[in-house]
Amino acid sequence: MGETHLARRRRLAALVAARDAGALLVTRLVNVRYLTGLDSSRAALLVAADGPAVLATDGRYAGTAAEVCPELPVVVDRQVAGALTARAAADGHGRLGFEAHDVTVEQHAALTEETGRLDRPIELLPLGPLVEELRMVKDETEIGLLREACAITDRAFEAVLPEIRAGVTERAVAVALERAMVDFGAERPAFESIVASGPNGAVPHHHPGGREVQAGDLVTMDFGALYGGYHADMTRTVAIGEPAGWQRDVYDLVHLAQRAALDAALPGAGTRDVDAAAREIIKAAGHGAAFTHGLGHGVGLEIHEAPFLGYDKTGKLTDRVPITAEPGVYLTGRGGVRIEDTFVVRANGPEILTTTTKDLLVL
Amino acid sequence: MGETHLARRRRLAALVAARDAGALLVTRLVNVRYLTGLDSSRAALLVAADGPAVLATDGRYAGTAAEVCPELPVVVDRQVAGALTARAAADGHGRLGFEAHDVTVEQHAALTEETGRLDRPIELLPLGPLVEELRMVKDETEIGLLREACAITDRAFEAVLPEIRAGVTERAVAVALERAMVDFGAERPAFESIVASGPNGAVPHHHPGGREVQAGDLVTMDFGALYGGYHADMTRTVAIGEPAGWQRDVYDLVHLAQRAALDAALPGAGTRDVDAAAREIIKAAGHGAAFTHGLGHGVGLEIHEAPFLGYDKTGKLTDRVPITAEPGVYLTGRGGVRIEDTFVVRANGPEILTTTTKDLLVL
Repeated sequence: MGETHLARRRRLAALVAARDAGALLVTRLVNVRYLTGLDSSRAALLVAADGPAVLATDGRYAGTAAEVCPELPVVVDRQVAGALTARAAADGHGRLGFEAHDVTVEQHAALTEETGRLDRPIELLPLGPLVEELRMVKDETEIGLLREACAITDRAFEAVLPEIRAGVTERAVAVALERAMVDFGAERPAFESIVASGPNGAVPHHHPGGREVQAGDLVTMDFGALYGGYHADMTRTVAIGEPAGWQRDVYDLVHLAQRAALDAALPGAGTRDVDAAAREIIKAAGHGAAFTHGLGHGVGLEIHEAPFLGYDKTGKLTDRVPITAEPGVYLTGRGGVRIEDTFVVRANGPEILTTTTKDLLVL
Repeated sequence: MGETHLARRRRLAALVAARDAGALLVTRLVNVRYLTGLDSSRAALLVAADGPAVLATDGRYAGTAAEVCPELPVVVDRQVAGALTARAAADGHGRLGFEAHDVTVEQHAALTEETGRLDRPIELLPLGPLVEELRMVKDETEIGLLREACAITDRAFEAVLPEIRAGVTERAVAVALERAMVDFGAERPAFESIVASGPNGAVPHHHPGGREVQAGDLVTMDFGALYGGYHADMTRTVAIGEPAGWQRDVYDLVHLAQRAALDAALPGAGTRDVDAAAREIIKAAGHGAAFTHGLGHGVGLEIHEAPFLGYDKTGKLTDRVPITAEPGVYLTGRGGVRIEDTFVVRANGPEILTTTTKDLLVL
């Protein structure tokens, strides 16, 4: 079921070898966590193409590192990247890959300077998101953690539903959802919750504020639980009192589009095509310009990770990839609707992890 | 009192001109927020050395940008950096500075490619943390927000104190502190709270877990409120029942060291010297190796920002710089003590914003 950190490092080593590098310097902290189990604010990992790995972290995490990954040699040095670059040279690696999507121009200049001081020459080789590629496809232990994160999210929504009524502020709803998630076992919210009522619903990333929910509002709630390091993401839009005709029409449209995306998200489907499945329906109804963002994104150790689903994206889905589908329609001055699930791409159709009803709830 | 965003951009423009660049491309989101007021997950700002600025963000934030900074022209484009680079070239800037501590090697390659496609040549010039330098010294409006963030933190500690007793888990204490901060007006916790009891106190960045607080423990709590975008940071260590001799000795030592750092933190003092004021006291008592991190850091729109105080740091403090002083002694297997305040460097001595007592509380 669950893959060991060692197995992950072995799969990465094969990718590094295929890029003709002697080793990869992993500096993205979430990637270090994926490959070692160490969750810290300063660490790096050197993974040699022929297998062995070395971890570097600073004094604050030295004890934790020894506990979490006792099988790994640990270099305690605040200059984690520099120390591992020196180590790579000492180990005789002529070409050292680095994460070009993480290392800044400033850090790169410092590493280049570091290599100039070394006895053995070493070439810095910009590599892409190799670890992120590995992370896209989850093992069943990871999916289990995500399933629990989503179950907590569902439970929190159900528990808070009676509190969502006219007179309550957006902020109070957000706080209630976040507390319920923690009460049900979340480490913390997976991201800053969005609660957008009435006209605020037209702002996709609205910060929940002091506006009181009113009769006649649609209220969009986008939130999720963090559990075991894995991020749930769900959005539901509810009506406060009997919805107006346009509100129900927009809701039904987004609901239909979301369903179409879920149906299209099979192994082998293009990420662009899954986006298109939802977008074409919204376009055909004349609201294409009101769906201002991509369809969805991968979830896992990050709330937004590969793959990304949008009209300008490339790549195909595969089995065991957890993603979101979150089409929305945003009508400035009036309000908006967004419906989102976290689900896992499976050969026999999507495994939907957020199971809260998508029928329009009239509160 | 409070500086306008326009005034901040003007001060930045002068720094850009001094670096002989036509404009600066600001890509760090927290810097964009500081210079415009826009808090988003995708934006960039072009600040010309002769004054005018242009903001870029994506469709999700277009409405918010128009509201928050109506005085700025806004380019709506997901490729925020690319769009502003093209704009800089069109505006005739020959040299475009960028934030080399933020732009990744991959993003830099993409920008270089972008400049190759432009009709007018433009040179990309790596610049350092210019905006971070501006951000170090706060205006009185910023300090007011930080003061309120710290007051909320103090109130939360006072409210939760009766709940800290034998049998309560670290996790429960952390959740209680975080909820109290939100109840007292915090947007959210400023960072992941640390509650470390008994032997866990030897781990500076311990994640609060299921361990129950026991009689005879020292319990270290490191937490703070976020208010108006500004981050409070406070640590207190308490004793559960009458402390053992070694516990009181270590507490008194850290308390003394922290006081020495506060006294040393005057305008003109070197950041290294303020660290040394505390470190020398701890060293002299034989615990130098047990103080495994730097003394403190700036706080503001980020929980850790310039200036950083440590034995390997350079630079001097100036008036109106809010920082922390948080010496600690960590004894593996036994426990630890850390005491931290957020305070503002002032000509007439530190203005301590976290006012909770530092006498050893025996609960």
